[in-house]
Amino acid sequence: MTNSREQLDAWMEIALSEAGRALDHGDVPIGAVLIDAKGDVVASDHNRREERKDPLAHAELLVLSAASGSDDWRMTDHTLVVTLEPCAMCAGAIQQARLGYLVYGAADPKAGACWSLYNIPQDARLNHRVEMTAGVLAEQSSNLLSEFFAERR
Amino acid sequence: MTNSREQLDAWMEIALSEAGRALDHGDVPIGAVLIDAKGDVVASDHNRREERKDPLAHAELLVLSAASGSDDWRMTDHTLVVTLEPCAMCAGAIQQARLGYLVYGAADPKAGACWSLYNIPQDARLNHRVEMTAGVLAEQSSNLLSEFFAERR
Repeated sequence: MTNSREQLDAWMEIALSEAGRALDHGDVPIGAVLIDAKGDVVASDHNRREERKDPLAHAELLVLSAASGSDDWRMTDHTLVVTLEPCAMCAGAIQQARLGYLVYGAADPKAGACWSLYNIPQDARLNHRVEMTAGVLAEQSSNLLSEFFAERR
Repeated sequence: MTNSREQLDAWMEIALSEAGRALDHGDVPIGAVLIDAKGDVVASDHNRREERKDPLAHAELLVLSAASGSDDWRMTDHTLVVTLEPCAMCAGAIQQARLGYLVYGAADPKAGACWSLYNIPQDARLNHRVEMTAGVLAEQSSNLLSEFFAERR
């Protein structure tokens, strides 16, 4: 797994492009991309809550779900790159999927469960620990979110 | 919403029947049923993780997902009845769905996120609070789980 800063930025650019697509259907712009051990994109998607009227259709759940279904469902050698700090549901899903490495952009002080309110991916009481890098291209993610909410006011 | 003990027991019996069905495909026996404001069953399902090779296919996520898709996706007048204390993923999903009332059976001291490790449904920092009753027919749920794990040893 190449974890250079340049590599993380490149993956985050893909996630940010996905986030932009959420705007097409009035959804909060959050995007995610799942990378395998070889560094290839396995799945990428964006928040589709409003589009699908489905409160569970967060970008992270969609990509984790898209990558499941094989006998080797554990994602210990996979990297999930997401533009915003995951919520409790998505952080829990990351745990359930036994994800190896989580990379996120902006922090979410109101609902983030990967540092802000909880740190579910690294809770020593759970039976799996996820490596984590935060703050990658955080400003670009924050700006995208700020513009979205400013336009709605 | 009728919340008498008899009513909760009756709903939990449905969830326990669902839990039993998970055994048909070698899954940990956990079941859930979603009830609307009128007291009618909206969806019921059980853990399908092994069956689908999908780490996200918990009973709770399956029933919440089955009930989404309409304009009125908020479940503030719905009751979710589940045989085991939900994990962080499912507790987060319960929050996302704005569920009104959560009822569960046995506690899960290792991974429960509705009292044991966290209390996500009632975290005052989040923008929604879920009413909660624990311990309904807990022994029946525990026995089902104990038998399952005893047979696998």
